[in-house]
Amino acid sequence: MKSTAITLLTDFGTADHYAAAMKGVILGIAPDARITDITHEIRPYAITEAAYTLAQAWTCFPEGTVHLVVVDPGVGSARRPIVAETAGHYFVAPDNGVLTLVLENARVHEVTSSRLFRQPVSRTFHGRDIFAPVAAHLANGVAVDEMGPRVENYARLDIASPVQTASGWRGRILKVDRFGNLITNFQSDQWLPRIARGFEMTLGQARVSRVVSKVVSNYADAGEGLFVIPGSAGFLEVSARQTSAARIAGIESGDVVELRAAL
Amino acid sequence: MKSTAITLLTDFGTADHYAAAMKGVILGIAPDARITDITHEIRPYAITEAAYTLAQAWTCFPEGTVHLVVVDPGVGSARRPIVAETAGHYFVAPDNGVLTLVLENARVHEVTSSRLFRQPVSRTFHGRDIFAPVAAHLANGVAVDEMGPRVENYARLDIASPVQTASGWRGRILKVDRFGNLITNFQSDQWLPRIARGFEMTLGQARVSRVVSKVVSNYADAGEGLFVIPGSAGFLEVSARQTSAARIAGIESGDVVELRAAL
Amino acid sequence: MKSTAITLLTDFGTADHYAAAMKGVILGIAPDARITDITHEIRPYAITEAAYTLAQAWTCFPEGTVHLVVVDPGVGSARRPIVAETAGHYFVAPDNGVLTLVLENARVHEVTSSRLFRQPVSRTFHGRDIFAPVAAHLANGVAVDEMGPRVENYARLDIASPVQTASGWRGRILKVDRFGNLITNFQSDQWLPRIARGFEMTLGQARVSRVVSKVVSNYADAGEGLFVIPGSAGFLEVSARQTSAARIAGIESGDVVELRAAL
Repeated sequence: MKSTAITLLTDFGTADHYAAAMKGVILGIAPDARITDITHEIRPYAITEAAYTLAQAWTCFPEGTVHLVVVDPGVGSARRPIVAETAGHYFVAPDNGVLTLVLENARVHEVTSSRLFRQPVSRTFHGRDIFAPVAAHLANGVAVDEMGPRVENYARLDIASPVQTASGWRGRILKVDRFGNLITNFQSDQWLPRIARGFEMTLGQARVSRVVSKVVSNYADAGEGLFVIPGSAGFLEVSARQTSAARIAGIESGDVVELRAAL
Repeated sequence: MKSTAITLLTDFGTADHYAAAMKGVILGIAPDARITDITHEIRPYAITEAAYTLAQAWTCFPEGTVHLVVVDPGVGSARRPIVAETAGHYFVAPDNGVLTLVLENARVHEVTSSRLFRQPVSRTFHGRDIFAPVAAHLANGVAVDEMGPRVENYARLDIASPVQTASGWRGRILKVDRFGNLITNFQSDQWLPRIARGFEMTLGQARVSRVVSKVVSNYADAGEGLFVIPGSAGFLEVSARQTSAARIAGIESGDVVELRAAL
Repeated sequence: MKSTAITLLTDFGTADHYAAAMKGVILGIAPDARITDITHEIRPYAITEAAYTLAQAWTCFPEGTVHLVVVDPGVGSARRPIVAETAGHYFVAPDNGVLTLVLENARVHEVTSSRLFRQPVSRTFHGRDIFAPVAAHLANGVAVDEMGPRVENYARLDIASPVQTASGWRGRILKVDRFGNLITNFQSDQWLPRIARGFEMTLGQARVSRVVSKVVSNYADAGEGLFVIPGSAGFLEVSARQTSAARIAGIESGDVVELRAAL
């Protein structure tokens, strides 16, 4: 019996029975799996935030780990369950873009083999009935090839890197951390040189937008108001000293950021 | 050494050392047990809520699992520790009704064999000193027969199903979910037909009660105010769109619901 | 392969990927380790609170357990990583006093053997890059002697017991529990006799201090306002009925308490 690691990443919270139900199903199929929570505190239905959190965590786990991601606003609809394999890791998730940041070079299969599911499959809890058993079977050594046909047209979010527009670049807020810092998808090593001669970063919609035009390299230099700073995850972050930038700007994960740089 | 699953369900929260202390005691007795949290976020002393959460989770776990429930307002008093066995699962809890929803057809024993306890037994932390070691010994294969005498007069709550009254039926709120929906103990398949011709569901005490008389089958049809809807757990729920029904009605888990139907 | 228990105690919270990243690193080195959370909800940088919580939990775990503590305001500075061994348990932590309450009779070594670390070592996340791998190597049987030189001049906080002053005794608030009770470091068995003839306990700074001079043995006798009561952890606690003593007094863990007793 293999003692494969299985990670869980959901928006279920920990006060209800949902995460435990998934773990029970896994232990019934793969009794020696090492189940580890990444988090269950993703904001409900926040796919971008889940994609970012997964990207930060999965590379710390050993090869062979199965990563189970259930942030699934489309549960009950026709969206497909998929499995992906890359760099010796396995991923199980709904096909809604939540795997965007790990799909580069991955082999992706739709899961059609319903004999792997917990029967009967409910309409509302695919985490328990579809995703958890598929993850457990992967941990037991069932190959992704046996689970369903390979697919190429899987969903991707435009969060992997900023997109060029007529007037500049459009990025995304990947996550709001617990201190209210806004982690963007502008990678610091690429973008710090480009904004060095001046920039305007616009947060939020036109009517209520906020413009940030100050960049600092550490908090002590920050002064008042919002500023941009290279963060520990390798991305530019929007912060404010001693307070929440997210609250000042009225921003959540997944929201758009527009950047104009004085190149 | 068996790698039996042991689940934990408490009202201890996760900020203090209490849940970890129980896990340490378990690992000292059953080093290969697979310890899984159901939740530690039951509202303090909310036995009904714990009973409901357990009922939703336990059937997802494999046979042989030991379920350890510590929601124990009577700690330090004369209430007994009990173990129950049903459908190949084991349950350890204080005898206060928290196992009500799993006791049908169960064999129940009082735990009197104090050699199984952690010594000395404190007055305030039976989770660590009595319930955790008993669960670990069950995981190691100690039989319920060896733990103490069989009992029939164990505590039960009147939550398994509504009770008929002079004017209708009296039910209970089993749980308030994270969105403020009130999960009742009226099973949808039995009660939807009975309320189809009109009903009044009264929440709360006489002076501050709320009456609900609308039932819908999905949220889109709901309109303003409180309404009844069949929920995903198989029970009628009281909900409000975009807001917390619990806050509107001033209701908590364990509270009474009165139903009058126009049969 | 040993299935050693490893406990985690941090101030990282559970919404981000940090705790999971540490667990992934551990499982890569010690695949069969039994990882158990003590808590991740220590108030950010609250070393005293972490020291107290560790002291309450570690003795419940079996001999051979590795306890990993990452509450590390000095990350990136020159503070040393240390390992300690006492009573058959192992501890890994930054050298900032967080092990104060377990260091009596312990052998303490600085960790200098960088081949044990995850490379490259980041400036901001030593939990993942230094402390987690060291804990995993301890679980695998690497001896503390092999990790670096023995040290005697490690950091200690003055929280193990109150300190005598010109006018009385100066103690500390070890933890604020979830109900707002203030757990002091005055041990009940020593101090109850000394305050029996009258006392003044002063909380907080001079300008905004609160004075408590009532001691009760159970909550029913308490009446209005703040009072002192012997708590379940063996220390005097400052409490208020039905409300938070911490909020009334404006006190956090680590704060000072001055005691004058009418001896």
